Amino acid sequence: MMTEQDIKDMMLDMGKAAKAAAGALANVATEQKNQALIAAARLIRQNQDKILIANAKDMEIATARGLAGAMLDRLLLDGNRVEGIASSLEAIAKLPDPIGDVMAQWDRPSGLNISRVRVPLGVIGIIYESRPNVTADAGALCLKSGNASILRCGSESALSSRTIHDCLVKGLEDAGLSPDCIQLIPTQDRSAVGELLGLVGYVDIIVPRGGKSLIERVQNDSRVPVMAHLDGICHVYVDADADLEKAVAITLNAKMRRTGICGAAETLLIDEKVLNSHLPAIADALKVAGCELRGDKAVCALDGAILPATEDDWNTEYLDSILSIKTVAGVDGAIDHIAAHGSHHTDSIITENAATAEKFLSRVDSAIVMHNTSTQFADGGEFGMGAEIGISTGKMHARGPVGLEQLTSYKYQVRSDGKTRA
Amino acid sequence: MMTEQDIKDMMLDMGKAAKAAAGALANVATEQKNQALIAAARLIRQNQDKILIANAKDMEIATARGLAGAMLDRLLLDGNRVEGIASSLEAIAKLPDPIGDVMAQWDRPSGLNISRVRVPLGVIGIIYESRPNVTADAGALCLKSGNASILRCGSESALSSRTIHDCLVKGLEDAGLSPDCIQLIPTQDRSAVGELLGLVGYVDIIVPRGGKSLIERVQNDSRVPVMAHLDGICHVYVDADADLEKAVAITLNAKMRRTGICGAAETLLIDEKVLNSHLPAIADALKVAGCELRGDKAVCALDGAILPATEDDWNTEYLDSILSIKTVAGVDGAIDHIAAHGSHHTDSIITENAATAEKFLSRVDSAIVMHNTSTQFADGGEFGMGAEIGISTGKMHARGPVGLEQLTSYKYQVRSDGKTRA
Repeated sequence: MMTEQDIKDMMLDMGKAAKAAAGALANVATEQKNQALIAAARLIRQNQDKILIANAKDMEIATARGLAGAMLDRLLLDGNRVEGIASSLEAIAKLPDPIGDVMAQWDRPSGLNISRVRVPLGVIGIIYESRPNVTADAGALCLKSGNASILRCGSESALSSRTIHDCLVKGLEDAGLSPDCIQLIPTQDRSAVGELLGLVGYVDIIVPRGGKSLIERVQNDSRVPVMAHLDGICHVYVDADADLEKAVAITLNAKMRRTGICGAAETLLIDEKVLNSHLPAIADALKVAGCELRGDKAVCALDGAILPATEDDWNTEYLDSILSIKTVAGVDGAIDHIAAHGSHHTDSIITENAATAEKFLSRVDSAIVMHNTSTQFADGGEFGMGAEIGISTGKMHARGPVGLEQLTSYKYQVRSDGKTRA
Repeated sequence: MMTEQDIKDMMLDMGKAAKAAAGALANVATEQKNQALIAAARLIRQNQDKILIANAKDMEIATARGLAGAMLDRLLLDGNRVEGIASSLEAIAKLPDPIGDVMAQWDRPSGLNISRVRVPLGVIGIIYESRPNVTADAGALCLKSGNASILRCGSESALSSRTIHDCLVKGLEDAGLSPDCIQLIPTQDRSAVGELLGLVGYVDIIVPRGGKSLIERVQNDSRVPVMAHLDGICHVYVDADADLEKAVAITLNAKMRRTGICGAAETLLIDEKVLNSHLPAIADALKVAGCELRGDKAVCALDGAILPATEDDWNTEYLDSILSIKTVAGVDGAIDHIAAHGSHHTDSIITENAATAEKFLSRVDSAIVMHNTSTQFADGGEFGMGAEIGISTGKMHARGPVGLEQLTSYKYQVRSDGKTRA
C-alpha cells in the first residue's frame, strides 16, 4: 500500500523523468520514433495471449463491480481488437512527422531572417477512460509528435493497459529511446491524478478524456494548462430550403450510424415553415431505425407517437438511440438555440439556400460547422489528419480534431549577420 | 463602498455583457472596427487636457504612496505620449484583419470540402500594470481581432485609464458598436480580479501582464485559461568560434540598448576557450556604457574589477544596468545552463560555426532563439507582426510575440452535397 507521500514522491519522479526524456526526444529523428512504434506493434502481436489474459481479468473485476454494458464493450479485447491496436501503431508510424516543419519564414528590413519552426509541447499528461487501446494510441501520438507522455488509464482497464504499456516500453528500448518517453502511472489511487495536475514545470499540458465529472474536476483542479476533449451536443438544423431527401439521409446518419460517439447528433432543429412537409419522413426513418423521439409542443401535435421533451432534453447528450426535436423560427432561431444549448462541438445545416448556409457557418460558434453534411464526419481520420487524440471544444491552442500537429507548439529561429537594434 | 456581493454581481454582469458583445463583434466588418479605432484616436487627441489632468492626479497619489522612479515614469503622460496613444490606435486600424482568413482548405475523398477559418477567441480579460497606454493598446488589439475585452488596469493609473477608456467607448458608439466591446473594471478592489478569474463560460482567456507575483497568482487562481506574458532571463552565448567584433556589438546592444524590456540580456555565457581572448573587449565596452558586471570565479580571476556573482545571479532578471557572466564548456554547457536557469523567452548564440549555431537553435527550448542577433529584437513590431500585447513564454496556443493573429482561434467549415458517413 502506498502512502500519500509515496505517491507524491513517485509522481514527482515521473514528472522529472518525463521532462528529461522530452528534452532528448525533441531532437530525435523521425526514423527512430517510427522504429519504436513498429517494434511495439510487433510486440503487441507477439504478446496477444498475455494481453487477452490480462483483459479477461479486467473484465471479470469490472463485471463483478457491475459496470454497464456499453462500458464493458469498450473494455473488452479480442484477437481482432488487439490486431487493431498493433496496426494503429503502424498507421501512426506512417503519418508525416510534424516536428521541424518550417511553418513560415520571412525577411525583415532590419536584416533579420525569421523562421517559425514546429516543436513538441514537451510533456503531456493524459487521463482517460477504460479503453485499453487508448494506452497505445495516446502514447504513440505523443511519441510521434516528439512529446513524452504520462498516461493514467481508467481503473477498470489497469491490467490490460499495463500489458500494452510493457510492449510500448520494449519498443522504445528496441529503438534506443528512453523508456521514460511513455510512462504509465502504476497505481489507480486517485491522489495520483491530483499530483499529476500539480506538476507545474514538469508537465506542459493535461488532456482529460472521459465523462463530464472527470473533465470538470481536471479543469477546476489543474495548475497545468488543460486541453479538454468534451463530449458533444451536436445539432442538425433542417432549414425551410432543405432538400427533403438530404434532410432524411443526413439526420438518420447523424443520429444512428453510431450513437455512442461525440459527433452523433442529439437534437434536430426544424424550421417551423417545413415542420408539416419535412418532419414526417424524417421521423419515420428514425423510428424504423429504432430511435426514440422527444419533441416540443408543435412536434408532438403533429405526431402523437412522439414523446414530449422537457427543458432538460435540449441540454442532454444521450449517446443513445434518442433524439430531441425542436421547432425554430428559421436560421436565426437555430443559431440562438445552438448558442444557448450547444457544446461548441459540431453542428450542421441542411439547406439549398447558399446565403442561409453561409450565415449558419459563420454565426454558429462551434469547432466544426457543416453544410449538408452528417455530423458523424467530425473525426480526425475523416478530416485527413490521420489518428486523433480527441476533439477539442475549447478555443485555446487546438480546436476540433487533435492530431499530431495539434500536439505541437513552435519556436522562432532568428538569424542575422550580427545585427543590433537601433 | 461596494460589498463583496456587489462586486460579484457587477463582474458577472460585465461577463455577460462582454459575451453578448463578442457574439455580435465576431461578425462585424473590418471597416466598422477600424472606424471605432480611428474615432477613438480623434477623441484622445481632443481630450488631451482631460487625460493629462487625470494623469497628474494619478501621479500625485502615486508619488505620495512612494512609487519607485521607474514605475512613475511608466505612469507619466505628456503631450507626446498622448499623441503616441492616439497614433498607436490608428496603426492598429491599419493592420490587416485576421478574422475570416481561410487558413487552409482541402477536399476529402469522401466528397467533403473542409476549410479552416480564423475566428476570434471571444472574451479576453487583461490584467495589467500601471501604464495608461496599455488601456488603449490592449482594448484596440482585442477589438481589431474581433474580441470583446474586460480590462483591469493597475491601481496607480486608474484615473488616466478611465479617461482613455471613455474615449474608446465613445469611439465604439460612433461606429455603431456596443460599448460593451471594451469594458474597464470600475473599481480597484482586488476581489474584482478574483471574480474575473472565475468567469468560466463568459471569459475565454486571461492575459496577465505585470510582475511575477501577479502572474503566479493568476496562474494559481484562474479557472479560465491563462496566456502568460512573463518577463525574460535572456542569454547571449559567445561561442569559441564567435567573431569578436560581433560579440562585442551584440552583447552591448542586447544588454544596454534598453535595460528595462523583457528582451534585454541578463546573463552572458562565454566558452572557456575564448574567455581570455574575447571577454576583455566585451567587458570594457559594457563598463564604458555604465554596466555593472558580476562574474563566476574564472571571470573574476581574469578581471579583478568584476564583482563575484552568487547562485542567485543566474536566476535574476535585473531589468537594470547589471550583467552576470558565466564561463561554460562549449555550446553544450551553454544549452545546459539555459535549460536550468532560462525563462524560455529569448536566447542568442554568437558564432561563425554554422553547425554549432544550428545545434543551439534546435536545442534551446525558448520562444525565440537567435544566431548572431541581439536579443533586443524580441518584439512583435520587429517581427513584422504590427502591435503586440506581449511575449508569451508558454507553449500552448501562442508562443513568442502575441499580435492580432495570436488573439484568434479557428473553426472548421465543412461543405458537401448531402454526404453521410459509411
